[in-house]
Amino acid sequence: MAEKEKQQGLTEKKEGDFSEWYNQVVLKAELADYAPVRGFMVVRPNAYSIWEKIQEGFNNAISKMGVRNAYFPLLIPKSFFEKEAEHAAGFEPELAWIESDNKDVEERVAIRPTSETIMYDSYAKWIRSWRDLPFRINQWCNVLRWEVKQTKLFLRTREFLWQEGHCVYETEEECEKEALLFLGEYKRLCQELLAIPVIGGEKTESERFAGAKRTFTLEALMPDGKALQMGTSHNLGQGFARAFGISFLDRNAKENVPWQNSWGFSTRLIGALVMVHSDNKGLVLPPNVSENKLVIVPILFEKGKEKVLKKARELEKKLSKFTPILDDRDSCSAGWKFNEWELKGIPLRLEVGPKDLAKKQVVLVRRDNGKKEFVKEAGLAKRVPEVIEEMQKALFAKADAFLKENCVEAEAWPEFKKALSEKKLVLVPFCNTPECEESIKEETTATSRCIPFGQKPLKGKCVKCGKPASLKAWFGKGY
Amino acid sequence: MAEKEKQQGLTEKKEGDFSEWYNQVVLKAELADYAPVRGFMVVRPNAYSIWEKIQEGFNNAISKMGVRNAYFPLLIPKSFFEKEAEHAAGFEPELAWIESDNKDVEERVAIRPTSETIMYDSYAKWIRSWRDLPFRINQWCNVLRWEVKQTKLFLRTREFLWQEGHCVYETEEECEKEALLFLGEYKRLCQELLAIPVIGGEKTESERFAGAKRTFTLEALMPDGKALQMGTSHNLGQGFARAFGISFLDRNAKENVPWQNSWGFSTRLIGALVMVHSDNKGLVLPPNVSENKLVIVPILFEKGKEKVLKKARELEKKLSKFTPILDDRDSCSAGWKFNEWELKGIPLRLEVGPKDLAKKQVVLVRRDNGKKEFVKEAGLAKRVPEVIEEMQKALFAKADAFLKENCVEAEAWPEFKKALSEKKLVLVPFCNTPECEESIKEETTATSRCIPFGQKPLKGKCVKCGKPASLKAWFGKGY
Repeated sequence: MAEKEKQQGLTEKKEGDFSEWYNQVVLKAELADYAPVRGFMVVRPNAYSIWEKIQEGFNNAISKMGVRNAYFPLLIPKSFFEKEAEHAAGFEPELAWIESDNKDVEERVAIRPTSETIMYDSYAKWIRSWRDLPFRINQWCNVLRWEVKQTKLFLRTREFLWQEGHCVYETEEECEKEALLFLGEYKRLCQELLAIPVIGGEKTESERFAGAKRTFTLEALMPDGKALQMGTSHNLGQGFARAFGISFLDRNAKENVPWQNSWGFSTRLIGALVMVHSDNKGLVLPPNVSENKLVIVPILFEKGKEKVLKKARELEKKLSKFTPILDDRDSCSAGWKFNEWELKGIPLRLEVGPKDLAKKQVVLVRRDNGKKEFVKEAGLAKRVPEVIEEMQKALFAKADAFLKENCVEAEAWPEFKKALSEKKLVLVPFCNTPECEESIKEETTATSRCIPFGQKPLKGKCVKCGKPASLKAWFGKGY
Repeated sequence: MAEKEKQQGLTEKKEGDFSEWYNQVVLKAELADYAPVRGFMVVRPNAYSIWEKIQEGFNNAISKMGVRNAYFPLLIPKSFFEKEAEHAAGFEPELAWIESDNKDVEERVAIRPTSETIMYDSYAKWIRSWRDLPFRINQWCNVLRWEVKQTKLFLRTREFLWQEGHCVYETEEECEKEALLFLGEYKRLCQELLAIPVIGGEKTESERFAGAKRTFTLEALMPDGKALQMGTSHNLGQGFARAFGISFLDRNAKENVPWQNSWGFSTRLIGALVMVHSDNKGLVLPPNVSENKLVIVPILFEKGKEKVLKKARELEKKLSKFTPILDDRDSCSAGWKFNEWELKGIPLRLEVGPKDLAKKQVVLVRRDNGKKEFVKEAGLAKRVPEVIEEMQKALFAKADAFLKENCVEAEAWPEFKKALSEKKLVLVPFCNTPECEESIKEETTATSRCIPFGQKPLKGKCVKCGKPASLKAWFGKGY
């Protein structure tokens, strides 16, 4: 059994080879698997259920904001990509085209890498008057980008699942206001559901979405010191509307060009979730995204076995709203079961054995800190949701403390480089030119993450070139 | 206004050019639109919300049956299709292949037409022992089949959305039992949610799914006399398991080949919904699949306008659990609004005007039969759900009566042909050979729909060839 239990768990540590540890957690917790085609992945039920929790939470939020879900086609004609020049240049290298032999298509078509173009072609038909605005649509779908960089489960795969929201407005003011509102919903989702703190801000020109006027982002810091983009929203300006012929009769009965925003996050969030919270025993899941909040493990001896099992089933029923797993298998030991459910990240473990039975109590164990407590059966229905909430909050607090510890400011170049080498996110005065950003990247491999919101105007010197800097920007290494 | 209102509605009648009427309902109720690539469609929010209701209902049902959702890759290697010969032959002509120039792929890949092959490749890695069985996974996704037949919104498009369930079992008995259980869930969905009666049975050899041992189906009858397949489940036997190397250690510690079933329905159900219930005013939706159960139209005159609007807003709040639409637009008449919401299929209309205000009542109008009733405001919260239930039941009863009227039996060939020409579904004694089925199709264009469940053994003569027939089968024309 010792040998078997050893194989069951992780063989690499989080503080060791982080990347290998991450892959092991993803594979062994059965979140995902490699697909037969290189760079693709299978999202297994343990991860898909997290995605469903994210969908449910986000759908609730956006439906209140007047957004409706729809579905647009997978295949996009070549000419559509070419209508918006910057957009075309951004996505062209990663497109997967369909072989057109024997296909009755008028032109070459590719699998969507994102859906601006195909959606806006329809928008041009549908939108007529200011009365149709704001016009807000979201879709949940798969997209495909033929990445040449090394792929990584959840973080960078050629196909991924995401949501993409696409809205149209009468004025730029309203457009940008809502782009920021949607970013606010992403923040809420990251913090309240995923228990991951984020830094919000604007992307620099170099990091902007292809075709956007402004890109807003949320950045999180992973335990290996790399920054991860959690979600972005874009003020697209009027460029796409012009390119796709979207216009509307305004309140003065004049033909006018509307403003657009788009916003998206992907299954990459699941990768972030794994990296931030998990440990050397395996997956740790914030209870709010866990399908099963607890696992019930009856401690079985030959004597009194039936009574313990009966109690376990009773508890399963009593706690049904937490969708407990009852692990009544005969084929493995309680220790094996503990390891398995820790590996798979079930937030709470409830143990019940013959001694507990006599005392009318159970043992409740928290996955994140291993803390055990004896809870009287009569108080269980009250205590379980409390512990769930405590754990959800503790995970956020821990991640937040880590973020704060690893966010530093620097004014001078050596100081900046030192902080980067210590795997920090570094806030520096920056001249905000693409040339300077490129030279920082060349020398350090770090990229600008964002220009944080709510800055006071600065009279500083750029950390790299020394020229005047009117703002500060976060730099860090990415994936 | 008269001119405008005329344009607003349908210009074709259900009893006229049925196909044109159908297209108009779909387009004008804003359920779908044509996509820029031929044979593809855009699913607009009014239809996508129906799909979400279907997903919600079905997810609830299957999660109780131990099915978990997952997501498998969009692209499938060529060699996978070739592993199961019949399956390959069935789908090969409709595959869309990816151009492989500059793609680092080991072999040609195509967009999934269905996911048996790519899923079972993973299953072979994951399934080890009888303890892993039954193994039940479902996925909601898009699939692509490059149809050469004329496409039609929802009914036949090259890309469509669907669910596909794929389960693995120790024994054939269990496998087939559950294939029928899933079919039973489809029936419940059709009848209780969509209010569409169906006939269940087994497909003949010619109509069987490519690679299946047995295919079970639910067939519905559309108002134009054509039969529509609503959902199918398949006993796949052991063929795919052998082809993909799925095996398990059985209870006697012997390596064994498991049994599999798969089952699916698609957005085609939305097409059926439109055809069965809608009328010459537009869409009629069973309340159970309608996102908004009612629309509130305040009847506004200059005098007392504010009071009426205030009451309408009060009612909107009071009835919020029915997600009402409040149509308080100033820009169009009450009559225009009535027409618009009838076109879009909102189940109930609630009118409130100055006279109603005085009498503390509202007018409630049912979309399906136009029946008006005055309801005292105090009784509204009780009456609305009653009327919703009445309407849901009435729609099913009407469709069921139509089905019963148009299902006939025939023994002799002339009688059979006459019934088909009268657009009936016809139950006939059948020798159950592919050759005879082909000759029936050639002469009548009708195909076998299913061999109904629960038949008594028959000693009859085949309606076509006169040879012994031990069963009866339903025949009808399809899309």
